[in-house]
Amino acid sequence: MFTFAQKKKVPDAAESVPQLTGYMQGFPPSGDKVISARDGSFFQFPALRYSVVHMREFMPTVNVPRGNMMPVTHFEYALDDSIDSVKFQPTGRERHITWRESLDLNYTDGVIILHKGRVVYEQYFAELTPERVHAVMSVTKSFTGLLAAALYAEGRLDPTRLVSDYVPELSSSGFGDATVRQLMDMTTAIKFSEDYNDPTAEIWAFSAAGNPMHTPGDGADGYYDYLKGVKKDGDHGNVFGYRTVNADALGWVLARITGKSVAQLVTEYFWHRMGMEQDAYYQVDALGIPFAGGGLNASLRDLARIGEMIRLGGEWRGERILPSEAIEDIFHGGNPEAFEKSREGKSLKGWSYRDMWWITNNDHRAIMARGVHGQAIYIDPAAQMVIVRLASSNLSSNLLIDPLSLPAYSAVAEYLMKK
Amino acid sequence: MFTFAQKKKVPDAAESVPQLTGYMQGFPPSGDKVISARDGSFFQFPALRYSVVHMREFMPTVNVPRGNMMPVTHFEYALDDSIDSVKFQPTGRERHITWRESLDLNYTDGVIILHKGRVVYEQYFAELTPERVHAVMSVTKSFTGLLAAALYAEGRLDPTRLVSDYVPELSSSGFGDATVRQLMDMTTAIKFSEDYNDPTAEIWAFSAAGNPMHTPGDGADGYYDYLKGVKKDGDHGNVFGYRTVNADALGWVLARITGKSVAQLVTEYFWHRMGMEQDAYYQVDALGIPFAGGGLNASLRDLARIGEMIRLGGEWRGERILPSEAIEDIFHGGNPEAFEKSREGKSLKGWSYRDMWWITNNDHRAIMARGVHGQAIYIDPAAQMVIVRLASSNLSSNLLIDPLSLPAYSAVAEYLMKK
Repeated sequence: MFTFAQKKKVPDAAESVPQLTGYMQGFPPSGDKVISARDGSFFQFPALRYSVVHMREFMPTVNVPRGNMMPVTHFEYALDDSIDSVKFQPTGRERHITWRESLDLNYTDGVIILHKGRVVYEQYFAELTPERVHAVMSVTKSFTGLLAAALYAEGRLDPTRLVSDYVPELSSSGFGDATVRQLMDMTTAIKFSEDYNDPTAEIWAFSAAGNPMHTPGDGADGYYDYLKGVKKDGDHGNVFGYRTVNADALGWVLARITGKSVAQLVTEYFWHRMGMEQDAYYQVDALGIPFAGGGLNASLRDLARIGEMIRLGGEWRGERILPSEAIEDIFHGGNPEAFEKSREGKSLKGWSYRDMWWITNNDHRAIMARGVHGQAIYIDPAAQMVIVRLASSNLSSNLLIDPLSLPAYSAVAEYLMKK
Repeated sequence: MFTFAQKKKVPDAAESVPQLTGYMQGFPPSGDKVISARDGSFFQFPALRYSVVHMREFMPTVNVPRGNMMPVTHFEYALDDSIDSVKFQPTGRERHITWRESLDLNYTDGVIILHKGRVVYEQYFAELTPERVHAVMSVTKSFTGLLAAALYAEGRLDPTRLVSDYVPELSSSGFGDATVRQLMDMTTAIKFSEDYNDPTAEIWAFSAAGNPMHTPGDGADGYYDYLKGVKKDGDHGNVFGYRTVNADALGWVLARITGKSVAQLVTEYFWHRMGMEQDAYYQVDALGIPFAGGGLNASLRDLARIGEMIRLGGEWRGERILPSEAIEDIFHGGNPEAFEKSREGKSLKGWSYRDMWWITNNDHRAIMARGVHGQAIYIDPAAQMVIVRLASSNLSSNLLIDPLSLPAYSAVAEYLMKK
C-alpha cells in the first residue's frame, strides 16, 4: 500500500503575510499560530515572514542606539516609478520579468535604491515599515568585517598575527594557529558544516549554544564557549570556507582589542555618528555576547546609509566615518583562487571574499553583504548605486535566490547609468 | 555546636555598581558574574543594579517606537544646584538629611525634577544614561490605567460592565463577575498574594507563566493563560488589594476593545505623539503579550514628559494627548475607605488608588505612579512639580523606601514654591 503525497504549494508573497497566515495575531494568538525561539518554529517559512521584523519579541537583544547627539540625516528623494518596469532575464530562465515582479517572487519585505545618494526607489511589504527593523542575518558579518578593517587601518589590529595572540582561550581550538586575516577572509580550515539541510551539521550545535531561550544541557553555553571546541580540518589559508564561526571568533578578537562588544563598536562607529533614523539591535547569548555572525537587526534606510557611506569611501555628510584604507582594503578583494575552490565559487564565477564582504569582480566592481533568506546590501560604484533588499524568502541559501536578484540589480544599474 | 553567622553588610550605592561587582562585565563575563532570567538571578540585588538598565538583554521585548513623525520635544533647562542641599527629615528618623544624600541611600539610578515644565534637576548614576531606558516595574500599571481612563473618556470603555463582557475567557475566573472599574481601582477580591518574601505566593507562578525563557511544564504558559485560573476570594469592591494581575486583566480588556496591545496603545497615544527621545519597550510572554502589570522600560526624560503632560491636564506642547476627563478621573481619586482597609493603607494614611495611580490626598493633591525597588513618577499640582525617580534599591517594597522618598519630594516641593 502506498499513497500519493500531494506536493504542498508554497504560499506566495501575498498569501504568506501574517494577516493571512495568522501567526502571532490576536489576543492571544491561537495555539497553533504561536511561534517561538524555544523550539525554532519562529524560523520556519511562512512564520518567518512575521519573525524577521519581530526578532526581539522572541529573544534577548542588546540595543544599538542612535543616541541623542545628532538629528536624522535625511535622504533627498527623486523617486522613479519606471524602475518597476525595468526588465531582466533571471539566471537560467528564458522569460524576462520586471523588477516589480521579482520583488514578490523573492518575498521582498523592503527595498531601497539610492542613485548618486538620492532615493530613487523605496518599497515596504508584509511586516516591514520605515520605523521597524529587520533581521539582516549574515549581513551582520559584513559589519564585523568593516570594524576589523577599520581597526586594521587605524593600526590597532594586525591581521598577520595569530588569533590566539588576541584570544588565548582559542589556542587549543582549530582557530588557534590561524591568522586574523584568515578569519577576516574566511580561509580557516575548520570542521564546521553550515548545511541547513543536514540535521547533524555543526551550525545547529552552535545555534543552540547561542540560544539563551533554554537552559543548556551538555552542550556549550554561549558563542565563545562553543568556539573553544571548534576542531581544525586541513590547512588554513587555501580555500574559502563560508563558516559563521569565523565572524564570531573575529568579534571576540575585536572585543579583546577594544574592550567593547561588536554592538558597542557598531554604535560608536556608525549609529552615534551617522544620524541614523532607528535604533538597531543585536541578538545576544546567555552571557550577553552579541551574535557577530548573524544577530544584527536594522532599518532599511539606515542600512542604505551604511551602503552609501561605503560607496563614498568611508565618508557620510562630510564626516569621515571609516578610514579610506579600510574601504580600499575591502574593494581590493580577496583571493580568487581560494574562492574558486569553494562551494560558492561554482556559482559565483570570478568572485572573492574580503573583510567579510562578497566581491563580485564584475565590470562595475560591485560588492555585496549577503544574508540568508535574501538579505543584501549591493554597492555598485560604476552605477553610483546602492541597493538594500530585506526579505523572508522560503529559500535560505542566497545561491538559490541570486537568479532573481543579481541580474535584477545589474539591470537597474544599467537603467540608472543611461538616465 | 553553632556558629555565629556574620551579618553581611549590604553594598552601598557606590559599592554596588556593576563596574565594581563585575556582573556581566568582560568578554565573556566570568561564570559567577553571569546573571540570567532563566534562573531569576538577574533580579537579585546587587545584580539588579545592572539588570534594570539592560532588561532586554535578558528577555524578549516588544518595541514602543518614537517613530519618524516628530522631532524631539526638548525641555527648557533652569538647573538649580541648591536642590542638592535641601534638607528633610526621613519618616521615623531623628536626623535630617539632604536631598543629595537621599539619592545614594535609596540607590537612585536617575532622577529628574521639572518645575513649571523646566528641568531644575537631573542626575544619572550607576548604569543609567540619558539615552538608556530603565525598568519602571509597576509604574507600568499606571500606563495601563491611563489608557483605560482614556478609553472611558472617549466612550469606548464602560467601567460599569463586567470584565467577562469584554473577555469571555475570564468568565469562570475570579475576575468574571468583577466590573472593569474594580480592575482599574484594584478592588477585586481574588486569591493572589504578591508577598515577595513568601515562596508560595501566587506572584511566582504568575511570573513563571509570563517568562518565555524556559519551556513551561505543568503551569500556565503566558499571562492570559494564568489569568483564566485566578480564583475569587471574597466580595469585589470593598477592599483595595494591590495585585498585579488586575493590570494584566485590564490590559486584556483594552486589547479586546481596540485590537491592539498595551505596547501598541502606548505607542499610538504617547510615543508617536509627544516627541519622545528614546524608544521604550515592554517585556513580553511566549505568546508575544506585553506585561501590562510591570513590563515597561523607558528613559528618564520620556517619563518626565508623561508626568508633565498629566500635570497639564492631558496636553503636551499645545497638543491634546489625553481627554481632560481622563486626567480628572484620576485626580478625583479612588475610595479612601477601601484603601484604608488594605496593607498599604496602614502606612499611606489618607491615600487612595484610582485608574492604577496612587492618590496621596495631601494638601498639594499629589499623585504617584510607583514601582518596586524605588521607581516613581510624582506629580505635585500645587508646586507645579514633576519628579521621576528610577532606582535599583536592595529593598523591593516601596513602603520601605517611602521614608527616604516621600518627605524628600515634599521638601523639594516646598523649596520650589518659595523660589
